[in-house]
Amino acid sequence: MALVVQKYGGSSVADADKIKNVARRIAATRDKDNDVVVTVSAMGDTTDDLLELVAQVTSHPSPREVDALLSTGEQQSMALLTMAIQHMGYPAISLTGVQAGIKTDTAHRRARILQIDPKRIRRELEKDNIVIVAGFQGISEGEDITTLGRGGSDTTAVALAGSLEAEVCQIYTDVEGVYTADPRIVPEARRLDEIGYDEMLELAVQGAKVMHPRAVEVGELFNIPILVASSFTDSPGTLIHGGVSMEVRNKVRGIAHDLDVAKVTVVGVPDRPGIAAAIFEPLAAANISVDTIVQNASIDNITDLTFTVSRGQLEEVMEVIKPITQEIGARECVSDATLGKVSIVGTGMQNMPGFAARMFSALSEKGINIQLIATSEIRITCIIDEAKVKDAVRALHRAFELDVGD
Amino acid sequence: MALVVQKYGGSSVADADKIKNVARRIAATRDKDNDVVVTVSAMGDTTDDLLELVAQVTSHPSPREVDALLSTGEQQSMALLTMAIQHMGYPAISLTGVQAGIKTDTAHRRARILQIDPKRIRRELEKDNIVIVAGFQGISEGEDITTLGRGGSDTTAVALAGSLEAEVCQIYTDVEGVYTADPRIVPEARRLDEIGYDEMLELAVQGAKVMHPRAVEVGELFNIPILVASSFTDSPGTLIHGGVSMEVRNKVRGIAHDLDVAKVTVVGVPDRPGIAAAIFEPLAAANISVDTIVQNASIDNITDLTFTVSRGQLEEVMEVIKPITQEIGARECVSDATLGKVSIVGTGMQNMPGFAARMFSALSEKGINIQLIATSEIRITCIIDEAKVKDAVRALHRAFELDVGD
Repeated sequence: MALVVQKYGGSSVADADKIKNVARRIAATRDKDNDVVVTVSAMGDTTDDLLELVAQVTSHPSPREVDALLSTGEQQSMALLTMAIQHMGYPAISLTGVQAGIKTDTAHRRARILQIDPKRIRRELEKDNIVIVAGFQGISEGEDITTLGRGGSDTTAVALAGSLEAEVCQIYTDVEGVYTADPRIVPEARRLDEIGYDEMLELAVQGAKVMHPRAVEVGELFNIPILVASSFTDSPGTLIHGGVSMEVRNKVRGIAHDLDVAKVTVVGVPDRPGIAAAIFEPLAAANISVDTIVQNASIDNITDLTFTVSRGQLEEVMEVIKPITQEIGARECVSDATLGKVSIVGTGMQNMPGFAARMFSALSEKGINIQLIATSEIRITCIIDEAKVKDAVRALHRAFELDVGD
Repeated sequence: MALVVQKYGGSSVADADKIKNVARRIAATRDKDNDVVVTVSAMGDTTDDLLELVAQVTSHPSPREVDALLSTGEQQSMALLTMAIQHMGYPAISLTGVQAGIKTDTAHRRARILQIDPKRIRRELEKDNIVIVAGFQGISEGEDITTLGRGGSDTTAVALAGSLEAEVCQIYTDVEGVYTADPRIVPEARRLDEIGYDEMLELAVQGAKVMHPRAVEVGELFNIPILVASSFTDSPGTLIHGGVSMEVRNKVRGIAHDLDVAKVTVVGVPDRPGIAAAIFEPLAAANISVDTIVQNASIDNITDLTFTVSRGQLEEVMEVIKPITQEIGARECVSDATLGKVSIVGTGMQNMPGFAARMFSALSEKGINIQLIATSEIRITCIIDEAKVKDAVRALHRAFELDVGD
């Protein structure tokens, strides 16, 4: 008997009929002689509705109390889904984060899973139960309820699969898998049958919404194959795993884009040791996540330092950065909040020249100006005008022939 | 510093504005130099909404899963109320049933509190926190979430007050206290300043909705004074306690009524030992709560046995009782679902003749026929036509001069 861990997102359990649909899918998995552990998100808009109530009560909610509140969303869907499975005649039991032994740190609203004690889950599996676990939540050492923040339910699922040594972790969502680009922008985008952890991680970090990078990292750590598929169709989905051969392919795997980019440039920075730390340490202290950082070559010991952040954080960034600009003797600090980024990702790019040139010329042919460039071993990212992002994605999809299969 | 335990019902926290109102009342209690522990019900119709979702998913929900689901209602109101208190600048923390150490038996949907381990509550009080506890819920030995059933949040409050040795338990609700009769039926009904545990218990059991008998029993057990008052006004409310003198009064304290009574009569029962057990043991096994039981004097060793149940259980009762009627050789089994009951209650009635006669003649003057009579030391109950109950309450209120103070 194999152990399968499944995760169903909020849109898959948005109402009673959808919950019953998910129950049927779980029963079918059980019928194939599998042990099944399922983790589930809150129904549809539950989390947003609860946050709306919070906003009516206070402008500065305590993260601990927000977690106590939000965790009820997954607890509700978990119980209702369990009832729906039982109604079909299958033995099932629900477990909250604490009952499932999901121990986290104390960082409320963005807690990290420290360990999972799967004692109770194993006991319930031995009793032949299908086990339904509330996603997105855990318990801290001080016995406070925590939530895992964005991507939390995916992370719960993959971490459970890892700690239970499951055969596979299946992430069911409202899309049919991982695509070569966003199909809403590129109609000829192709669903990938499989993708490596590293490639998926780069795509996720660079804006592909289908899976959160945290969950991919955990999958890689435990070497758990992750299937991403639709809960509404029987499409085979995309398998994220570590066994994808890196040698035979010489291709870009996919294109990610992100419409939410703001750029900050500190102009005329005296180029001396410690200057970067003087700028980025206060930003880190303010819990601001800086993305791409580019420093120009220094002329007469004066340089420009540019970085990007998400648009929602720009105002806070400028508050932090303006006094620093003065302190370090830089000339000024300017920002642009109308940017986006587009990335090509593929392990086949490693140590292979020509990808960057092909990317830049494809963008140039469309008259798209590149403002910043950032690269990793398996990725090239260009920061461009937000208004040009969709054109860029389409042009790159064609240039790298992603509509053609492997 | 005195310790005050308060409870706010669902209508008192039905929306964000009402939650803020409750937060102000709690802050005012704290300002009077009290330690404050609060237990809270689910917001408004939350529980009904959740049960509606259950009905859409299954007709036979597992009580364990219903408890996991319903307990989220109190968890939500507890977190929101805590945020509202914090927003006013007061230190506060929320605790779920399990965090508050409320241990129950495993009878899901109607669990009993076995013990409270107030370790965490005490620790939070020592940190100067106002402690907000989710009402109505606890945890079983197997670490499953349980709910306490009807009157659960009141019971949570009084049990917390008992285990913390609080000075008083204040139950805030949408009425101004305990009245001599339901003010919607008897406009001249008077709020009682105080009432004894036993009297309150009889009134509650006989239909007064203001407090659940379970909570009164726990209050008596721990000898915790219980104040019942409105969360919307500053009316002084009614203090339920053990110190009410029994000697000086010679009066009925209040009138309870109940419109939800069905009567079952097993006709022509052979009167031999064990016959009552043969009838009532199967009913108990079916979890049916039987109220008044009356057995006629036996003629030629044949008797009639009559009992009452709530109307919602009548169908189930008849299913259980009909085969038994045959087994024991009784003639037939008949029922009447259009009954109600009216009770007069007062410790002043103990060993004092004349109350029953005055009650019966007051009803008789209004042409009200009495179908059954049941008594305790401090109560007389008459089962009458449902249609006559309100007339009966008014007549008795006048007959015992309850509009006049002590």
